[in-house]
Amino acid sequence: MTHSERRVGLAAGMAQRRVRLAAELAARDLDALVVTDLINVRYLTGFTGSNAALLVFASTCDPVLVTDSRYRIQALRQAPDLDTVIERAGPRHLVARAVSAGARRIGFESHVVTVDGFEALAAEITGAAELTGRVGAELVRAPGVVEGLREVKDAGEVAMLSSAAEAADAALTALVAGGGLRPGRTERAVARELESLMFDHGAEARAFDTIVATGANSAVPHHRPTDAVLTRGDFVKIDFGAVVAGYHSDMTRTFVMGVAADWQRDIYGLVAQAQRAGVAALEAGARLSEVDGAARRVIADAGFGENFGHGLGHGVGLQIHEAPGINSATGGTLRAGSVVTVEPGVYLPDRGGVRIEDTLVAGRQGPEQLTRFPKDLAIV
Amino acid sequence: MTHSERRVGLAAGMAQRRVRLAAELAARDLDALVVTDLINVRYLTGFTGSNAALLVFASTCDPVLVTDSRYRIQALRQAPDLDTVIERAGPRHLVARAVSAGARRIGFESHVVTVDGFEALAAEITGAAELTGRVGAELVRAPGVVEGLREVKDAGEVAMLSSAAEAADAALTALVAGGGLRPGRTERAVARELESLMFDHGAEARAFDTIVATGANSAVPHHRPTDAVLTRGDFVKIDFGAVVAGYHSDMTRTFVMGVAADWQRDIYGLVAQAQRAGVAALEAGARLSEVDGAARRVIADAGFGENFGHGLGHGVGLQIHEAPGINSATGGTLRAGSVVTVEPGVYLPDRGGVRIEDTLVAGRQGPEQLTRFPKDLAIV
Repeated sequence: MTHSERRVGLAAGMAQRRVRLAAELAARDLDALVVTDLINVRYLTGFTGSNAALLVFASTCDPVLVTDSRYRIQALRQAPDLDTVIERAGPRHLVARAVSAGARRIGFESHVVTVDGFEALAAEITGAAELTGRVGAELVRAPGVVEGLREVKDAGEVAMLSSAAEAADAALTALVAGGGLRPGRTERAVARELESLMFDHGAEARAFDTIVATGANSAVPHHRPTDAVLTRGDFVKIDFGAVVAGYHSDMTRTFVMGVAADWQRDIYGLVAQAQRAGVAALEAGARLSEVDGAARRVIADAGFGENFGHGLGHGVGLQIHEAPGINSATGGTLRAGSVVTVEPGVYLPDRGGVRIEDTLVAGRQGPEQLTRFPKDLAIV
Repeated sequence: MTHSERRVGLAAGMAQRRVRLAAELAARDLDALVVTDLINVRYLTGFTGSNAALLVFASTCDPVLVTDSRYRIQALRQAPDLDTVIERAGPRHLVARAVSAGARRIGFESHVVTVDGFEALAAEITGAAELTGRVGAELVRAPGVVEGLREVKDAGEVAMLSSAAEAADAALTALVAGGGLRPGRTERAVARELESLMFDHGAEARAFDTIVATGANSAVPHHRPTDAVLTRGDFVKIDFGAVVAGYHSDMTRTFVMGVAADWQRDIYGLVAQAQRAGVAALEAGARLSEVDGAARRVIADAGFGENFGHGLGHGVGLQIHEAPGINSATGGTLRAGSVVTVEPGVYLPDRGGVRIEDTLVAGRQGPEQLTRFPKDLAIV
């Protein structure tokens, strides 16, 4: 596929997403939606500027993208199929456009728009009514509509997620093969080398601050790398991800330095077993709380329930954490095409901890694993 | 200063900030403020977890920090002087605490709290009134109160900003000294080496995605590095910054590769002159629009007004962009102790552009420059 073919393909994918959104709006009896979340704008248009809003109609009216003058050229390049307006007060402009196009029930992202921002939009409704003589338009809360669409990935998205996972796999493989995990190195040095290797293997960014946690630090779920030194007998827990075309990967592997004690083998085996149970439960239609439960029971039954204090996983896509969450309190079911992590852990305070995490696509015939670095206990 | 002395010093600085905030609340006739912006929480407590909220009273009641179980240990370490509550629905919990402490006018950050979030807080007011019998409490918009305090940096903050600027200076010096800017290298390779050097010189993170823009790309104000190759005769514009202890630096330098044409010397000289004018205008009490004007006039008088499309600068601190803005539309005056950038540019489409930017502390006796890499036209 050439570069321009890919661009046409991506643009068609975005247009398809907007069609799905229009149907969703119609189903909610909304005439239009003002999209102000930047990630949602990117999802629907491909535009990545830091100031943007998008108006999408339930009808066949053309969508309108708004940004400021810094992004004039970038908007033309990234969203050539869209009507783009240069205007600093973007969301207000779009509300006025919606009113003058005759929209009455105008949705807004109430989970994103601030109280002050809402006041400005409401003032615009009044102003536009006075200006155009069109009265009766109202702002309607529409939280999470686009996020709902994003929960199911299309083929283009899965391809990007897969590329991100490959970059991370390749980086960790190169790190280990090059002796990057050796006694005497600091957590920080390992994190930096791994990140550099991700860039070498095609990442455009890190998915989040890389976690490298050695020894007792591995018992802290979200430890940040320090000058602590890798030491024989330590666990080394590495949680990291790559970004490709805006899409994130997320993977955790835990190694042992030099020699594994029995307790280390035991909790490693337990977490690995729990992870297999969680992955096996990833069936389209499964209750999300039950996916969490499948893995959690393994750990709880072994007496370590108190040592697994976080949820089993989360959706991954244009954000590192997105819908669906997978924990004991999550409502709803897993949808085919969701891309999620499965990441149980057992953390023994002041001793050490293990987490094993993959990113997977949920499907009707079981999950497809995107992160593929081996999961057997590796003694390095 | 030992590590623990530094910690005590920082904790005292945070407590001092909370005292200033309490006075500000009293002046606004607020009994308390629920702080939900994470940067504002960090500023007032030192706590850096990704889930946090803080309740501060105008009276001498102790402040309350709330976070979730992931951050129990981290909160103890970073904010040992504070009453910390583990509770997922933090802001709601704090509203209830405020009501039961007898607060009636409870401020919230209306520029941060979403419409949906506000609804949850409002429901809590009702619920708490029913539970405690205390009625008459109300939520009051209080946008930007903490940001207003943050606009003037204290000594501890200036020290961190200075360290961040030093890390950036040292990295760019090392890049140039090591021949990092040479024909045939890609923008991307230069950006990666510079970032790696920043980490070598003490940065904990990049302040933002490093901009390296060569040739015609330098005419794009916010270009992102590509595989474009540095070529003899090109401008190379580099805009980057380091983060130390959460504080950001911001600096732009523009180089010429090998040989400078007359037009390049001309616009470089013009931008340098404009930058000096902007820096000279950085006096405490100066109108911010006039600081912008001082630099902008130099460029406009030379006939390039159309080629300088962005504001002159912005505040820098725990965020890369914070108050005050410095552009033609900014109201208000410059306060002593503000840390701001001065960054005029001239961009000639399809040819090239120059920007020169420093981070400076505004003072009563003129500004103190934090970024110190030389600004003479450097031909590399």
